Amino acid sequence: MTKAFKPRLPLSAAALIGLFPVFQSADAASVASPNGEIVLNCDTDAAGIARYEVLFHGKPVILPSALGFSFTDGSAIADKLEIVDEVQHSFSETYELPWGERRLVENTYNELELTLRQKEAPGLLFTLAFRVYDDGLGFRYEFPEQNGVKALEIADENTQFRFADDPMCWWIPGDWDCYEHLYKKTRLSEIDALDREGLNKPLSSTIPENSVDTPVTMLTSDGVHLSLHEASLLNYSGMTLRVNPQEHMLQSSLVGSRRTEWKARCELPFSTPWRTIQISDTAGGLIDSCLIINLNEPNKLGDVSDYVRPMKYVGIWWEMHLDRNTWAYEGGRHGATTENAKKLIDFATKNNIEGLLVEGWNTGWENWTDPEAREGIFDFTTAYPDYDLAEVARYGKEKGVELIMHHETSAAITTYIDRMDAAFGLMRDLDLHCVKTGHVGDIIPVGEYHHGQWMVNFYQSVYEKAAKYRIAINAHEPIKPTGIRRTYPNAISREGARGQEYNAWSPGSNPPDHVPNLVYTRLLAGPMDYTPGVFNIKLKPYKPDNQLNSTLVKELALYVVLYSPIQMVVDLPEYYEGEPAFQFIRDVPCDWEESHTLNGEVGQYVTIARRERGGDAWFIGSVSDEKPRHFELKLDFLPEGKSYRMVKYADAEDAHWDKNPCAYTVTRSVVTRDSVLTLDLAPGGGAAVALEPID
Amino acid sequence: MTKAFKPRLPLSAAALIGLFPVFQSADAASVASPNGEIVLNCDTDAAGIARYEVLFHGKPVILPSALGFSFTDGSAIADKLEIVDEVQHSFSETYELPWGERRLVENTYNELELTLRQKEAPGLLFTLAFRVYDDGLGFRYEFPEQNGVKALEIADENTQFRFADDPMCWWIPGDWDCYEHLYKKTRLSEIDALDREGLNKPLSSTIPENSVDTPVTMLTSDGVHLSLHEASLLNYSGMTLRVNPQEHMLQSSLVGSRRTEWKARCELPFSTPWRTIQISDTAGGLIDSCLIINLNEPNKLGDVSDYVRPMKYVGIWWEMHLDRNTWAYEGGRHGATTENAKKLIDFATKNNIEGLLVEGWNTGWENWTDPEAREGIFDFTTAYPDYDLAEVARYGKEKGVELIMHHETSAAITTYIDRMDAAFGLMRDLDLHCVKTGHVGDIIPVGEYHHGQWMVNFYQSVYEKAAKYRIAINAHEPIKPTGIRRTYPNAISREGARGQEYNAWSPGSNPPDHVPNLVYTRLLAGPMDYTPGVFNIKLKPYKPDNQLNSTLVKELALYVVLYSPIQMVVDLPEYYEGEPAFQFIRDVPCDWEESHTLNGEVGQYVTIARRERGGDAWFIGSVSDEKPRHFELKLDFLPEGKSYRMVKYADAEDAHWDKNPCAYTVTRSVVTRDSVLTLDLAPGGGAAVALEPID
Repeated sequence: MTKAFKPRLPLSAAALIGLFPVFQSADAASVASPNGEIVLNCDTDAAGIARYEVLFHGKPVILPSALGFSFTDGSAIADKLEIVDEVQHSFSETYELPWGERRLVENTYNELELTLRQKEAPGLLFTLAFRVYDDGLGFRYEFPEQNGVKALEIADENTQFRFADDPMCWWIPGDWDCYEHLYKKTRLSEIDALDREGLNKPLSSTIPENSVDTPVTMLTSDGVHLSLHEASLLNYSGMTLRVNPQEHMLQSSLVGSRRTEWKARCELPFSTPWRTIQISDTAGGLIDSCLIINLNEPNKLGDVSDYVRPMKYVGIWWEMHLDRNTWAYEGGRHGATTENAKKLIDFATKNNIEGLLVEGWNTGWENWTDPEAREGIFDFTTAYPDYDLAEVARYGKEKGVELIMHHETSAAITTYIDRMDAAFGLMRDLDLHCVKTGHVGDIIPVGEYHHGQWMVNFYQSVYEKAAKYRIAINAHEPIKPTGIRRTYPNAISREGARGQEYNAWSPGSNPPDHVPNLVYTRLLAGPMDYTPGVFNIKLKPYKPDNQLNSTLVKELALYVVLYSPIQMVVDLPEYYEGEPAFQFIRDVPCDWEESHTLNGEVGQYVTIARRERGGDAWFIGSVSDEKPRHFELKLDFLPEGKSYRMVKYADAEDAHWDKNPCAYTVTRSVVTRDSVLTLDLAPGGGAAVALEPID
Repeated sequence: MTKAFKPRLPLSAAALIGLFPVFQSADAASVASPNGEIVLNCDTDAAGIARYEVLFHGKPVILPSALGFSFTDGSAIADKLEIVDEVQHSFSETYELPWGERRLVENTYNELELTLRQKEAPGLLFTLAFRVYDDGLGFRYEFPEQNGVKALEIADENTQFRFADDPMCWWIPGDWDCYEHLYKKTRLSEIDALDREGLNKPLSSTIPENSVDTPVTMLTSDGVHLSLHEASLLNYSGMTLRVNPQEHMLQSSLVGSRRTEWKARCELPFSTPWRTIQISDTAGGLIDSCLIINLNEPNKLGDVSDYVRPMKYVGIWWEMHLDRNTWAYEGGRHGATTENAKKLIDFATKNNIEGLLVEGWNTGWENWTDPEAREGIFDFTTAYPDYDLAEVARYGKEKGVELIMHHETSAAITTYIDRMDAAFGLMRDLDLHCVKTGHVGDIIPVGEYHHGQWMVNFYQSVYEKAAKYRIAINAHEPIKPTGIRRTYPNAISREGARGQEYNAWSPGSNPPDHVPNLVYTRLLAGPMDYTPGVFNIKLKPYKPDNQLNSTLVKELALYVVLYSPIQMVVDLPEYYEGEPAFQFIRDVPCDWEESHTLNGEVGQYVTIARRERGGDAWFIGSVSDEKPRHFELKLDFLPEGKSYRMVKYADAEDAHWDKNPCAYTVTRSVVTRDSVLTLDLAPGGGAAVALEPID
């Protein structure tokens, strides 16, 4: 790791290196990406409105767009602004992630900090910080301490993103409670987030206006790939983007609360999250971008290697979604029994799987979604009588399998806050270090939403408290990832999208293009606990009317394509018996030295290659939508002079996500960097490849 | 199981059912197989010589051949014999094997018992018993108690097999000490067993004349497949067959001893082993024949299910052949350490392998082949200091892996006889129930040979004593199998042929046709502990000048093709890592409900299908010699109305035993009995298929 602070660059110098602002204002400032291909201009217009625009390869991708806020007292940061200071500097460092898609992350940008002041009372002072990278940019509002202003009560943030054309968008609704929607593909002008047709109706969903959530990914008529999101969402509300179809514009619309007038209340000094725009010529460039994580603060937790451990895990979980067993004890089909847990530990031990998640282990599941009974129903410490928690933990430790705890709060957050110390204390006593949290339902306290400031702060407080107990958090029904895993590396994974379980629900199966959508949208934001690995694609005999819209091999590919440091091995063990394809799941790691996207188009297909952390083995995953694909790929990412044993898992010639999902071939050969890898993906299919160096 | 004794059939009745003896003698007797296709005639000729002949489909396959003995006192059973009694009867039963290629064995034959008497002194009385099956016949000499004769001291048995033409033969030399030779293919008239060119030179080998060992397999110019062997070799010497090239004849030549004038000494009453002739239109018919086992006595040990357990096993063994480690403790590369054993137990536990063989665990290996020191060198109870026998046994039991003991006697048989009780007693104390015995070197007592009567009796005594200790025996450097596993089902497997280890020795690799030779010769006699499963075909880096002359997939096929109820998983665990083909080894069982040979030609190729004992899964193995093969096989052995998940492990298109041995494909599909299975075997390659019923 190297850190190299470069001296601040005066604007004149920026002009010398070829930045040609479009703005003609006297106060126009510019900053370009290190490679010069992205240019950010910012000025104030005649009315004193702060505006920014973004150019890529010399062409505008964001037209001049206004920046500002409205406050609950009726005031606003809108016009009559003046730029009072301008600073530029360059920064470059390479830092190491304790776990991730890559070990080393390059963080190189040019920064423009413009300090603005309201020319009229209250004369608020703030800085617009723009960091421009080769793969996009981020900007945020920074409010320093200033006289007479203790806090800002934000009615809304009014950051605009005005597009040069009507881009194609891959989007989900701007839901204040739920991210578990299917992605839709429309032009920006055709987005209708209020049309709930075909939308999942989860237990808790609030879509108050025609807005989209982030990341929202776009393709312009110039072939430029964009994705809008935010980074380092802390002590602030989640941002949705309100659609202005006429003006081809999106504008920030924060998640609110029914308990407060404000959508966010921030004591000075404070900075908003970074508003991020990933920009790439290729769809794969979005995936390989480190913009989001770079725009987060460095690790605050220090060395977490004693308790944050990338791993595959099995679980008492899928069988409940299949209705074979139940979370609840009553009814005689309780899944979380000591015996069942031990069987899964034995299975894990045999198959290079290091974790076991047990859901439904604790009392409360008989009426957990009852609106009258949710508060206080779970205590996170009392096991059902047929589940010996300590014995399962002990047996797992003996066999090298870590028990992953499960804390479902049923969104009774105040209950969890009260009981978190007891819950984490029990884990400390049992030497357990990972918990899956879940917050299904409407938030208690009533009036809060999953993605508002109150919950953002709650989610953060869980990471902070968990860190004290040396516990890693896999949050379901989470706030969206915004790269805070860099700051809190115990944020090991999260849900926040439609995962595998929808395939067992009726109606609700994820369509063949769901994963190619996820990769270019939700996954740009950070790891997802999608829970891959179903081999019993048709779900018989448990769910005869449901199925995965996927081939078996595509399920393998998910272990590479959908990055997460913890990856479930989700199916019932009996469905892995006798399947040579299971070898891929045994072999595939969850932690990577480097990652490269080899090809792809948003929502259509993607192929990603990753090298195992601390090793020389490579793994490749490729997935398609409902179309078959033929790829011939270079292996030139392999080093010179080395041979690799290649094991390729491919859809059989006659495979098809619906008609023949389980037919596959495995091919074992020897390759070098000069070899060409041919992949043939079935409709709705995939491919998975393991490359192990040989002498 | 049913037993149905039919009433004795008079010769006139035999004539009525279409038997037309070639012999014209007045005393000619005939018996035919149940299907009438095999006819056995026996008479005495004008000189009173007892003769038999065999017809198949009405054509002679054995021309009139003489029967008799010579004794050490110069007397003989040769001529001047008369038939004094003739009895015929039919027999049919179906019995169950505790383990085997099939659970139920049909044993249906017609028997002719001719009692003969020497017309002159000493007037010996004996019965020639002929049992004629649809798949061949066996005959033996039975000597009842008779006045004045306590025992016969046999100088040699003079049973002749005179062929109608000069058949093609697959043979190994008639070695009195060693069966570990490569099979040669020549016409009978061209057999030269004394030409040692290209022969392995094992530690102990004695080839006193131009004879062959049994089973010797033949193909006549009429396309009839024959194999000569013996069944139920107990208290007698092993039979070799002396070659008479001029007369296209083989004649029994018993293994002798330098300590006695006789080759066998038998107290009356006694019966010789059965001399067997398997006869089939197809090569595969020889494999599917149960003649050898049928000609053995029923199980004498009763229920052995508590200790005789078909299983796969790993071992501290191959690494010594690779010279990575040593049997001996001195030298610093001792293989049999507690740590190494535990690692292998862990590996076994993960991979559906239930046994662990540890060689080199006990003191004595520093100079075990020293001719001056062999006697008394091994005590079979004292472990080397780095091997905690009790702890390994305990750890294995905890993990569900049975420790297989190893008793190498270095052929100091008298030492082993003295110490067997102590050795077996230790196993009883440790609750161990399987031992691999080894008898490398010249036999002590000096003058005895591995295959003589003294050793035959020793081998039997080991089974009998072991049964008392509830121990199963896997004998290496054994007497050949003659079906006594039916009588002593603790005879769980044995060596008695060139196994895998020759591939690590220089020079000595088994050629590509070795397995297709074995299957139609040695394996007709009974199970072989070949120790398959090498994945590191080129043996690098351990033996850069050696290799297997095989593809990786052919090694898989051996688990089906080379039947043994205990099958080693021989390679170092690291060579199985990341190999999807290892799934076949995990899945393949060692005990079968039924077996069928689907195709084959002696020494060229064979495909065998077997159904798992007590289950519905099928496994198919196919191997070739150095030629590539394309097969299209019917799956009509599968039941109606069932679908099967088929996993086919095949050589890759460009695979080759020498040029590209590890390239393979695995194909997973769904089939029914109406499907056609296509197998493409590489030169020197194979195929392996697993069929699992699905709902």
